[in-house]
Amino acid sequence: MRTVDLIIKKRMGQALSKEEINFLIEGYTNDSIPDYQISALLMAICFQGLNADEQAHMAEAMLKSGDQIDLSKINGVKADKHSTGGVGDKTTLVVAPIVASLGIKLAKMSGRGLGHTGGTLDKLESIPGFRIEVSQEDFVKQVNDIGLALIGQSANITPADKKLYALRDVTGTVESIGLIATSIMSKKLASGADHIVLDVKVGRGAFMKDLENAQALAKAMVSIGTSHKRDTVCVLTSMEQPLGNAVGNRLEVIEAIETLKGNGPADFNELCRELSAEILLVSKVVKEKEEALSLVDKVIKDGSALEKFRQMVQYQGGNPDVVRNYSLMKEAKEKIDVKSPTSGYVSHIDAQAIGEASMIIGGGRLTKADQIDHSVGILLNKKVGDRVMEGETLATIITNGKNTEECYQKIINAYEFSKDEVKVSPIVLDIIK
Amino acid sequence: MRTVDLIIKKRMGQALSKEEINFLIEGYTNDSIPDYQISALLMAICFQGLNADEQAHMAEAMLKSGDQIDLSKINGVKADKHSTGGVGDKTTLVVAPIVASLGIKLAKMSGRGLGHTGGTLDKLESIPGFRIEVSQEDFVKQVNDIGLALIGQSANITPADKKLYALRDVTGTVESIGLIATSIMSKKLASGADHIVLDVKVGRGAFMKDLENAQALAKAMVSIGTSHKRDTVCVLTSMEQPLGNAVGNRLEVIEAIETLKGNGPADFNELCRELSAEILLVSKVVKEKEEALSLVDKVIKDGSALEKFRQMVQYQGGNPDVVRNYSLMKEAKEKIDVKSPTSGYVSHIDAQAIGEASMIIGGGRLTKADQIDHSVGILLNKKVGDRVMEGETLATIITNGKNTEECYQKIINAYEFSKDEVKVSPIVLDIIK
Repeated sequence: MRTVDLIIKKRMGQALSKEEINFLIEGYTNDSIPDYQISALLMAICFQGLNADEQAHMAEAMLKSGDQIDLSKINGVKADKHSTGGVGDKTTLVVAPIVASLGIKLAKMSGRGLGHTGGTLDKLESIPGFRIEVSQEDFVKQVNDIGLALIGQSANITPADKKLYALRDVTGTVESIGLIATSIMSKKLASGADHIVLDVKVGRGAFMKDLENAQALAKAMVSIGTSHKRDTVCVLTSMEQPLGNAVGNRLEVIEAIETLKGNGPADFNELCRELSAEILLVSKVVKEKEEALSLVDKVIKDGSALEKFRQMVQYQGGNPDVVRNYSLMKEAKEKIDVKSPTSGYVSHIDAQAIGEASMIIGGGRLTKADQIDHSVGILLNKKVGDRVMEGETLATIITNGKNTEECYQKIINAYEFSKDEVKVSPIVLDIIK
Repeated sequence: MRTVDLIIKKRMGQALSKEEINFLIEGYTNDSIPDYQISALLMAICFQGLNADEQAHMAEAMLKSGDQIDLSKINGVKADKHSTGGVGDKTTLVVAPIVASLGIKLAKMSGRGLGHTGGTLDKLESIPGFRIEVSQEDFVKQVNDIGLALIGQSANITPADKKLYALRDVTGTVESIGLIATSIMSKKLASGADHIVLDVKVGRGAFMKDLENAQALAKAMVSIGTSHKRDTVCVLTSMEQPLGNAVGNRLEVIEAIETLKGNGPADFNELCRELSAEILLVSKVVKEKEEALSLVDKVIKDGSALEKFRQMVQYQGGNPDVVRNYSLMKEAKEKIDVKSPTSGYVSHIDAQAIGEASMIIGGGRLTKADQIDHSVGILLNKKVGDRVMEGETLATIITNGKNTEECYQKIINAYEFSKDEVKVSPIVLDIIK
């Protein structure tokens, strides 16, 4: 088999066989196929796509390129969730305790934030003492004991995907439904859960700008999951503005805890309910959406979801009192209100710009080596649809003084206004099973 | 300027500016842009193409990546010809003396053969003593003295093209009209002639399989030439079978000399007349095709074209008596007739297979390091349209015994037959100016 012939085959629009895809992925992972051939192949895939079989084979080849997490020693129904990445997306911190309190086993490995998007691990590390480095053995034990664990990735999961993603990033081959779907799904398959809920963000603030493309991506991912015998569902959710009111690690943990107490902002609360209900459905714990939602509401109301969060914090070395005493998490020194330059209705808030505004004051990292200041962030007082008067506070910057001016300008520029009333789009746009 | 942004721009179907193309070609030539980014760009170009401006800019950037031949010290009308590569294509050996005997200055740098196609330099080296390594100074002097010189390329012409071509070869990005056109034209522009005739081979034995693609390539090359103020014409010629009867270095030199004596095979003779006439027209020596053709016929008939060939051989160190005594060129030992397995009409002769058959007996090289046996080759006794009886000689292998059996089989397999009479397509399919 010659790599150049396979590149030409794909360029001509023909499907690659399972053996051919294995040859390419294995060869690339073990360095026997050079970057310059794979980048040409990736560009050909951007134009010609991958059919369902090719996607399943590629996800499998990538999955097999590294370690696979063995969850066989965890008893019960094992579920996982994944988000394609948004701003203010602290969903995992709420959804995981909800479904764990309803008997689902959620053994989740999360990532750190980079650029304008935050990472679940960074958020959790706002809690003093919280450990995200946990051995595989302790990970399994914790999930068996309390039903959930949120930890960092220590195993060598899908090295082929890491190498491919780095290459795609510098060769203009990121935007391909097939490549995105196989990248996400190879990691999810390697993580070992049987039931998978994917939150695909859609909108100007997301990687997927329009519903049509997001639906295509969702279908591709569900198809890959199904072909690997994993129950998979995609929830397509709006990212036309940051999610909830809080952006920044400590602030997001607080908002997550408040949501577990039933006090979450409407959009974020609704998303958490929907995603939790879909996990119950895909895990076949219940059959009807209404029943699923009422179970979710019940564990919020009776405090068992919050208690699950508290147990997790305690198990992973954090101070569990954080759930009632937020001052246990270090607070930033200064609060600066961002005043509206105009009167009208908020018509759009550029999520990426808000993410960047939080990043530059220390809430995120531009490169992997950057240190994070967990205490800083932005609280949005006005969201899309809200009426605002000139001089009223749009948002509050919680800062230790770094890049505050630039942050202020970014927030001002992120807001768009309309003279007329603005209709807010629903948070859940579609569900693909 | 970031390379990845330019890749994405091309992937999205937008045209690259002159500055952007210069950035890419310069960066690739000086190794500041890696192979893996350029191969992704090349694949994007395969899908999105290059418009006329982009082609002109890319040819110029490639031209400027290396040395340019200075022909300013050559007096008179300077023309050049180029063929996209065929089997049995000894046209330069005939056309150059014809036009030189009519006052055109033809200072041509040729290449060696590789794979199934031969090279003008290898053919000329069949002549004992013939020197193809000539200094720039002697090159200019020779052309001023006798009107023509056929030499090897010593200068560092279009290094960007060499590097790009090597990359295209291993990344499945060879087949792109824009990339082929800029590759050929950058070299022609660097060679310094003002008037350029390109022989684009079309057919199953050529790189361009169909007339439509060949026409598109021709138009692209004429457009690049025109934008660089070079008079350029493309003659599209049939490569549905090898050109003439002789394939192999010594045999092709003999066929070229015979053609200069007026005894050439019909198809080859016609092609040489047409190309010579087009050079006269593009160089504005004459205005009408008929007049051009009659001048060509005149210099064949009165022996002045042959005399020009003799002068060139003498000037470049070869024995000029070769034009009347072919035994001065070393002859191979053995002649083996290839017998027809059937009766009927020859409907097709696979030119590539005949080229390979000649290569494996020593007439060509598979890798650049291979040595050539100038004395071997194949003489085709039957060509497309000819009637043949079972057992009649299709071709004769002139060999020193290497791979004779395999050569025989390749020739047999290269011939296709029809029960019905076969119409021979004209050698010149189209002319694009």
